[in-house]
This record gives sequence, C-alpha cells and structure tokens, in this order.
Amino acid sequence: MLHDFTYYNPTRIHFGKSALNKLPQELENHGTNVLLLYGKSAIKKIGLYDQVVALLQAAGKNITELAGVDPNPRYSTVLEGVKLVKDHQIDLILAVGGGSTIDCAKAISVAAYAEGDAWTRFWINGENVTHPIVPVGSILTMTGTASEMNSGSVITHTDKKLKVGRVFPSFVNPVFSILNPEYTYSVPKTQMVSGIFDIFSHLLEQYFSGNDDNTTDYVIEGILRSLIVSSRKALINPEDYEARSNIMWCSTLALNKIAGVSKTQDWEVHMIEHQIGAYTDCPHGLGLAVVSTAYYKYIYQEGLDKFVRFATQVWNIDPSGKSKEEIALAGIDALIDFIKELGIPTTLRQLGVTEEMLPLIAASTFPGGGYKKLQQEDILNVLKACY
Amino acid sequence: MLHDFTYYNPTRIHFGKSALNKLPQELENHGTNVLLLYGKSAIKKIGLYDQVVALLQAAGKNITELAGVDPNPRYSTVLEGVKLVKDHQIDLILAVGGGSTIDCAKAISVAAYAEGDAWTRFWINGENVTHPIVPVGSILTMTGTASEMNSGSVITHTDKKLKVGRVFPSFVNPVFSILNPEYTYSVPKTQMVSGIFDIFSHLLEQYFSGNDDNTTDYVIEGILRSLIVSSRKALINPEDYEARSNIMWCSTLALNKIAGVSKTQDWEVHMIEHQIGAYTDCPHGLGLAVVSTAYYKYIYQEGLDKFVRFATQVWNIDPSGKSKEEIALAGIDALIDFIKELGIPTTLRQLGVTEEMLPLIAASTFPGGGYKKLQQEDILNVLKACY
Repeated sequence: MLHDFTYYNPTRIHFGKSALNKLPQELENHGTNVLLLYGKSAIKKIGLYDQVVALLQAAGKNITELAGVDPNPRYSTVLEGVKLVKDHQIDLILAVGGGSTIDCAKAISVAAYAEGDAWTRFWINGENVTHPIVPVGSILTMTGTASEMNSGSVITHTDKKLKVGRVFPSFVNPVFSILNPEYTYSVPKTQMVSGIFDIFSHLLEQYFSGNDDNTTDYVIEGILRSLIVSSRKALINPEDYEARSNIMWCSTLALNKIAGVSKTQDWEVHMIEHQIGAYTDCPHGLGLAVVSTAYYKYIYQEGLDKFVRFATQVWNIDPSGKSKEEIALAGIDALIDFIKELGIPTTLRQLGVTEEMLPLIAASTFPGGGYKKLQQEDILNVLKACY
Repeated sequence: MLHDFTYYNPTRIHFGKSALNKLPQELENHGTNVLLLYGKSAIKKIGLYDQVVALLQAAGKNITELAGVDPNPRYSTVLEGVKLVKDHQIDLILAVGGGSTIDCAKAISVAAYAEGDAWTRFWINGENVTHPIVPVGSILTMTGTASEMNSGSVITHTDKKLKVGRVFPSFVNPVFSILNPEYTYSVPKTQMVSGIFDIFSHLLEQYFSGNDDNTTDYVIEGILRSLIVSSRKALINPEDYEARSNIMWCSTLALNKIAGVSKTQDWEVHMIEHQIGAYTDCPHGLGLAVVSTAYYKYIYQEGLDKFVRFATQVWNIDPSGKSKEEIALAGIDALIDFIKELGIPTTLRQLGVTEEMLPLIAASTFPGGGYKKLQQEDILNVLKACY
C-alpha cells in the first residue's frame, strides 16, 4: 500500500541531442553573474566547455570559473565556491559535469549565505534551510547519481574522513538540467559501469523495503528491466544512442523520488559504501557493487518474499521446483553475474581497501538496515564477506 | 530510444489519509478569495464539503461557490465560473471532485482573463496561453483522468456537440493536489470501473506507439501490472486501502507525463470515445473500454511486435508454440477478459449509442492513428465492430 507522502519535483529536464539549445531560454530567467563549475578536463575534450562559454557570452553573462571538482567532491571546494559566490555576487551556479559537480554546486548554493559552519549545520546536524540560496542549473555529462533532478548532495570532508549525504528540500533541486546522452559517450568504461551500478543500487535500496503490494515496486521493476537490457547493449557499443539514452533516463528516474514514493528506505549499502569511499576514494558505483555481492546474501532471509519477487520479476528466474530460499538466492546470484558481466571488481581488496581499514570502516558506518537491523558487528561481517 | 523531450511537472502532491492536513499550508500561498468548485452532492455525503469549508474559513478565506459541474464538464459552466472569478476577484480556484471538476477549474483559470472567445481560441484553434491565469488547487475524490497532476482540460460544448481535450503548458497544472484514497470509497461501482479503465487506456494509448526499445515502455508495463493486481482486489473489496491507494497513484502516474516521455502518441481510442461521449454522455472509461475491444483487433497487425510484448509482459501469455499473431491476439483477448471482469459493457448499444449515430460519430472523429493510419471509413468499421 501507499503510505502518506508528499511528492514535488520542480526541476525542468531538457533531454536529447538538441537539449543544449534550451540553455539560452533558461539563462533568461537568471541574473548576469554565473559561476561555471566543472571537474577536470573532460568537458573541454568533448568541446562542451567551449559551447557553454559561447552560449553564456552570447547571453551577456559574466563568467566566474571554478574548476577541479573531485569525483568525491570535497568540502574544501565548497568553501572555495562560497567565496566566489560572495565576491562576484553570483546569480546562477551552472554545474557542467557528473553528479559530483552538481552535488558540489548544491552545497555551494546552500552554504553561500548560511551563518556559521555549514558542514556541521547541514551535513552533520541535518538542519533545515531557511536562508536564501543561489539557484543551480546543470548540464549532465555522466549518469548515476540523478543529482540533476533531486536535492541530494554528498560531500566528503577529507580532514574528518567523512563522506556524508544530505537530502535538502526540493527548492535546492537544480531549476533546470540539460541531459544529452551523447555527452556520456566519452566517459571511460570504468566510470560508465560505475554509473550503471550506482543506478542499479539506487533502485535496489528503494525496492528492498516493505512487504506490501506497492505500485512503486512495479515501477522499479520496470526501470530495472530496461536498465539491464540497455546496459548490455552499451557494453557492446558505448555509442549506442538507444542504450545510452535509456540509461540516462533510468538514472534520473531511479532517484528523482518517483522510485521512492511511499517506500521506507534504509540505504544501508550506500551507508557502508560512503565510508569505503571516505577511506579509498574508489568510484562510488564500484563500491556499491562490491558491498551488494555480500550484503544481500547477509540479509535476504529476513525479506525472503521480496527477494523471491526480485528473482522472478527482474531476472526471470523460473521458480518451478525450487524452494523460496533457492529462488531468492538464484536472484542474488543473477545480480552478482550481472556485476561480473559489467566487468566490476567483486572484492574490496581490488578497490584498495586494506585489512586494517575493515574495522575502521565498520565502526564509522551508520548501522541501520531494513529487513534486518544491523549492528556494527554485522557491518564488519558484510565487509569481511566481500574483502 | 528516447527522442528529445522536455519534462517539467510543477504540481505538489499530498497523498494519503492525512493529506487534507496539508491544505492550510497550501492556502497560505494564495490570496483571500477562493472559488470553491464541485459537482453534485457526493462531496457533501462523505463530509468532505464541510471539512474543506471549515479549513477555508479557518484560513480567513472568502468563499464563492460554483456547484453542479457535470461528469462531462460543459463550456457553459466554464463561462459561469469566468463570471464569478471576475465578479469576486478570485485568487484561487479550489476544485473538489473528480477529473471533470478539475478540468473545468483549469478551463475557468485559462478563460477568465482571455480576450475574445476562449472556446474557439484555446480548444479549437489550440492557441498558446500568454495572458495571466488564476491558480488552481485540487482535492481529488475520483481517480481516472490524472487531471490532478497535468495540464489537460477536456470540455464539452453541448450546442456544438463537441467534446475537445486540450493540453495546456505546465503552468496550468494544479499548483497542489490533495489525494486521499479513502475519498474514492464511496464512488459507485460503475464509476470506479470506469475510472480504472480510463487509467488503463491512458497507459495503452502511450504504450502502443513506436517500435524501439524505450525505458518508458518498461515503466508503463510496471504500472499496468500494478493496476491489474489492485483492480482485482478493489472489485472484491472497494474499501481495500492498499488496492485503492495503488489505483489512485497508478492513475496519476498514467497521465502526469512520466508514462509519455519521448513517446509519439496518437490517442485514437480517446478521439473516438470523445465523440461517443458527445453523443451519449456515457462515462468516459466505459466508452474507452468498448472502443478498445474493437480498435486493437483492427490495428494490431501493423504493430505486431508491440502487441506480442504486451501479451507476454503484461498478461504473462506463454509464447511457446504460438505464432506472433496468436500471441498478440491472446494479449488482446486477455484485455477483453479483464474488461468483462470489471463488469464493463462491451457494446456501444449498451452505452446508448443508436445505429443512426454511428456514421455521425465516425464523421466527427479526428482520423489519426498510430501503427495504422485511419480514414473515416476505418473509424466506422471499428464502431460497427463493437456496436
């Protein structure tokens, strides 16, 4: 059943090969001073940087640049952005890049005119945002986080070895996002599959909760099926527009709240991965995949019926002659096979985790869990099982 | 693949048993003068009228009422609303009822300050809306049209015997909509199943288009699966909250644009039904069901692969040992069986259509079509096949 919820998503999405043509009309809604935020040189290699700068100039905007946003965006970069926003009276933060860049843009947006220590107030203490923020627009070049259509912002505080995700109210969403699947062609294969598994994991975190009959679960199964089909095509040909366009939209749908409607969610795989990321800086999706290989086998018995459904509805496991337990395990094995098919590592060791890190990661992970409530010891068991 | 699209849906949805509690905070965003728009006595019977009036009074609003909106809302009612909006300087039109009432509210919203003849300008000529409109909020008591989260407005001009749907830009959407599944309990069974098939038909109109691999089709299949399961439960017990809450959200998802992303759509079943409705005033969903029993058999060979997919993915038809044609027909038969299971008539005659009306209905229907392009003669053939 559907538990009470409020759904509101005010981001305008422009999707497709011609999506950048919509940038000028979006720029008309904002003031003159634009902070152009991006990562490394990727957007220059594909010519996007030049196109965006030309459109900004044609619109008469003053451009301030902040480059070098890291894959796990750092709070120190957020503070650099805050200074630029104040110094240049920025009217719009335009993030060009993947989820990391957009997450960083939202963090700058919220932190810019906040009093006191924004990190502690908003990421640690989860305070509400009541002060003015700076609008964010985005041009997406990498799929995975759905940051282009949500209010999440995952920031890493390197000094404190903490990677913390915060979901802000919807007014922190990008006001517009431009999604051209062709921009994702040049992403290296490791990042492509990392993004794909990030999407997969977002869907699973929302799916594996509750035992009721809920429309949202059917929607998630549909997105998962599409994602599996298109991922296999993209592995063969990364420039398959059909596959990449579907993956890009699956990514947005996976975390723009539609797939979370009325679902209680614990996000435990993400909780564990965030701490792995804080210790190793590994690509987020790869960390999620490795944790998933062990986590679901550790908890499935407490959510048996849902894992049976996952096996039959997502992986077309034939249930005949099998016990519920066998069906459920066959579904998890199909998931692990898919991870291998994507060419993703299946051990923490391959991601740079050392044996000494395991208890530190376990101790610093929030011990939640859904079907099975986890203690710190359980998290250590999961980590050891995929080490 | 995903064709270029812009997606934007600014409606805030409050869903669930406690959703009405969110009305006061929504009212804070609007001025003092509220036009309360509703249909017949249904909202009084369930006590909702009194609750809403009490909340409006508590918020210090001046209430102007317009009651008696018809199931196929009439342009004459729209004109009554326009007069009230101007006379009372209305700040918010609050529609309490089903899709008809909300469609009527949007029509009043657009027509209120339009120069010239709004019917001709916006419903017949499809002109863009560039003048100020009046915000609409809604409290939904009947599912089916998704008018609570879109910009559509179907209005019947009784003098001209025309029922015309218009999709306005997103700023015509209700700014907020309150959805409590319990309000739908008291809807008579005929209207419940009419609403269910309306939802079903919205999904099919979007699904049966294109031959590509498109994430949206997987999403539609998921919503259809959920709708089938919950409809069967609601037939047994109309007060099954799990079923009714899922149906209510399926209804919104079916036509809030998510299920239409990147799909070319011809809406031919609706085109035909609208003219049946103009001649008979029959419940919309019942008309759609009757037309569907004949229409899909008339066109399926031109979209064979999609009808095969419909059969296997939505109805779990076992394809082994069957030709594509046999699989496709088995899927359509499963749909017809479902219509019968809902207790819906399967002939136009049962809806009050006379033999004399058939050529008139055919001649006044827009001859579009997707997989198969239809001429006026084809429409007459479809009508005869379900007469």
